[in-house]
Amino acid sequence: MSLLFPSRWRPASLTLALICLGLLGHSAQAEEIKSPNNQLALTFTLQAGGVPTYSLTYKGRPVIKTSKLGLDLKQGPGLTSGFAVADAQKTTFDQSWQPVWGEVKTIRNHYNELTITLTQAATKRTMLVHFRVFDDGLGFRYDFPKQPELTYFVVKEERTQFALAADHKAFWLPGDYDTQEYSTTTSKLSEVRGLMKKAVTPNASQTTFSPTGLQTPLMLKSPDGLYINLHEAALIDYSTMSLELDDKNMVLESHLTPDAQGNKGYLQTPCRSPWRTVIVSDKAGDILESKLVLNLNEPTKYQDVSWIKPTKYVGVWWEMITGKSTWSYTDGGNIKLDSTNYAKLKPNGTHAANTAHVKEYIDFAAKHHLDAVLVEGWNTGWEDWFGQSKDYVFDFVTPYPDFDVQELHRYAAGKGIKIIMHHETSGSVRNYERHLDKAYKFMADNGYSAVKSGYVGDILPRGEHHYSQWINNHYLYA
Amino acid sequence: MSLLFPSRWRPASLTLALICLGLLGHSAQAEEIKSPNNQLALTFTLQAGGVPTYSLTYKGRPVIKTSKLGLDLKQGPGLTSGFAVADAQKTTFDQSWQPVWGEVKTIRNHYNELTITLTQAATKRTMLVHFRVFDDGLGFRYDFPKQPELTYFVVKEERTQFALAADHKAFWLPGDYDTQEYSTTTSKLSEVRGLMKKAVTPNASQTTFSPTGLQTPLMLKSPDGLYINLHEAALIDYSTMSLELDDKNMVLESHLTPDAQGNKGYLQTPCRSPWRTVIVSDKAGDILESKLVLNLNEPTKYQDVSWIKPTKYVGVWWEMITGKSTWSYTDGGNIKLDSTNYAKLKPNGTHAANTAHVKEYIDFAAKHHLDAVLVEGWNTGWEDWFGQSKDYVFDFVTPYPDFDVQELHRYAAGKGIKIIMHHETSGSVRNYERHLDKAYKFMADNGYSAVKSGYVGDILPRGEHHYSQWINNHYLYA
Repeated sequence: MSLLFPSRWRPASLTLALICLGLLGHSAQAEEIKSPNNQLALTFTLQAGGVPTYSLTYKGRPVIKTSKLGLDLKQGPGLTSGFAVADAQKTTFDQSWQPVWGEVKTIRNHYNELTITLTQAATKRTMLVHFRVFDDGLGFRYDFPKQPELTYFVVKEERTQFALAADHKAFWLPGDYDTQEYSTTTSKLSEVRGLMKKAVTPNASQTTFSPTGLQTPLMLKSPDGLYINLHEAALIDYSTMSLELDDKNMVLESHLTPDAQGNKGYLQTPCRSPWRTVIVSDKAGDILESKLVLNLNEPTKYQDVSWIKPTKYVGVWWEMITGKSTWSYTDGGNIKLDSTNYAKLKPNGTHAANTAHVKEYIDFAAKHHLDAVLVEGWNTGWEDWFGQSKDYVFDFVTPYPDFDVQELHRYAAGKGIKIIMHHETSGSVRNYERHLDKAYKFMADNGYSAVKSGYVGDILPRGEHHYSQWINNHYLYA
Repeated sequence: MSLLFPSRWRPASLTLALICLGLLGHSAQAEEIKSPNNQLALTFTLQAGGVPTYSLTYKGRPVIKTSKLGLDLKQGPGLTSGFAVADAQKTTFDQSWQPVWGEVKTIRNHYNELTITLTQAATKRTMLVHFRVFDDGLGFRYDFPKQPELTYFVVKEERTQFALAADHKAFWLPGDYDTQEYSTTTSKLSEVRGLMKKAVTPNASQTTFSPTGLQTPLMLKSPDGLYINLHEAALIDYSTMSLELDDKNMVLESHLTPDAQGNKGYLQTPCRSPWRTVIVSDKAGDILESKLVLNLNEPTKYQDVSWIKPTKYVGVWWEMITGKSTWSYTDGGNIKLDSTNYAKLKPNGTHAANTAHVKEYIDFAAKHHLDAVLVEGWNTGWEDWFGQSKDYVFDFVTPYPDFDVQELHRYAAGKGIKIIMHHETSGSVRNYERHLDKAYKFMADNGYSAVKSGYVGDILPRGEHHYSQWINNHYLYA
């Protein structure tokens, strides 16, 4: 996994129209709202036993059939039944904003919202569900207000269902706690189970969880020509959602990434789940053009976003991936950063990130009007960089003997080219956090203004996963 | 657990006598060395199947009967059998050094050492065992040299045995991955199993592992009047050792603290285990006076140790422990450090660490010629400080509204009293590491020169234990 120039945005060009339609009564058991263009209809229904459900139609055709909502908790009764509807609020929102960068200059955030307040009499707990219906789909999330009887709680599993109307064609990847690097398999949902084994190709870190476990975003096409995309937005302080397919009933259910103890999330009220998203259209291109997920993500917290720029770059990395050269400076292994003396080791002669070779990349970038050169393998430690559950694997500041940081920046600057830093963490997250300050200072001191970070290999702290809440929080911290 | 003024020392007054007695031949199957005063005798024997063992006598009486050595690894054959003795070296060492502080000014480090080099033909691996026999006991450790066939390896369990000569009287505490805060039970070893349940008293974080699991140091008295103490030294990059008692055969075996995945240690050659120690005497007082563990610990790495000073202090903490007052400023809970505004909360009136009350402690300390006052509960967050698996539990720099840091330091300085900082981490180790730099800077900026750190409650990252390798490494980092 690599993170470069994370997508961030900010609200702008505010054209707000907020209409509060008021209280609809405590006895309401079903509520409906439609998209601004009236083509989508969302229905919330409280079923027998106080089980909250929802359904969604598009131009009168079923997208999500009646599907259950809620969460199982590690301790005490779950938040899945025994509810009454205490309140239902409908509002409309219409605002345009400008992303820092993207395909379009202005994005319209236009939806009708239904907020259901659920109270669980037996436990005196309250949970809200917000539904936002856009012209291009639905977003909904759980909202846990501050309250005496629900403060700290541990999620055993989220039980959000997506009941499909048929055995759709799916463009799917295996659900995995540690990697999203699989090729897409195209099949009917009923064929997933038979194709899963073939779909799970090797990766440096991988943890599949079910023969019918699927990643989000999951792209579907219904027999009657509807394109449906299931995903999430505003993934903050929560674990990543995969989907578990019940291939008898064609019901998908949320499956969160666990931590080392098998728990799915540690929450403290007030707090909210990420948005669960259903983008839908009868034109495939609409799915690609949808800005629903961007509209539901949080606005950036940065006041100054002038430093966020799209960059076209060439990278010293594919020649290592293809095996032509190496990240490492020597062919030996068993490196200890605090005692290995590279000056005494024999260079392997295949180290790509050497000063002369990187200059060739800089020349290439300048000739072809690129902005930057990414250099992987510039720093010590690559001899045994993953697969060893190694804690102190990189220090992010020490170049190999044949990589002259200052000379390369001088050379690159002379040609108007930037060098992009590479922080491969090898999944050793504590080690990265311990070195973050010095690593960023090294970048600032040496003229780097962008970094690609990577998390190849199993996560340390051991037992955590690439997409667990703990590690998702790390990504935002780093 | 609390750490204040950790014991550190440095070598001094070198009076070195190193005698290499040379190679004793590859065919040696048994080797013996004695203590400098000849009262202890250590015998190493390679048993049938290439199983390494040792035994120890004191004045001709058995202390440790023939006991197995070695480790099981997570992958591949263990390091417990199939060995040949490739080398045996005997040396003598005699050196005196001065601890930074302690009961005595000079400590003599005097021992005879036997180093056995074991080779495992089937795997081409080499492991050394160092035995050091002092007048007051035995220390031995495993040593894994750098070698092609053993680089990174995971310890499944250490299999070091201590076979006792009888059903000794034991002064024991339950073995626990998370706490050493139990009262001592005195019983025969054969009675441990029946008394364990009663011995396991409640603690904020506790994980016992066996009805016959015991902590080190374990103090024993043999029926014939020998006092025997089992413990460890130089615990670095390794998990803490407890002991599992086979109460039929009176054999104790090492039981290491696991990580979240049940593994006991991640090692990279060259590396060594901690020392396993057996202090023995026929006089109980000798055990207390023994400096064997100090002699086997690593010398301090600090060049400047002038800042390490014993301090006599009074603490604002026992009145909270006894329930007279509180660490917290309010009686509410559900605090979020990044959003809770304490100025708007109602004080509970029982907060001990308030400016006026701490001044009384300062007056008391000055009157009774103490050096310092420790203040717990001075910083925000104590309302729900443990038991919630809370990540961001403290920031270590924000005082409660009624605790005036500068005024108190001014007042204390006027009376020649220092205030001791308190960093309660609540076991939230990542959070503490993220705040360490700012927390120490806050101390330096405000005149604190000592800190008590605490780890109450279950460890985060979740699944790790207070005494696992990962967390032991944190203590050294912090």
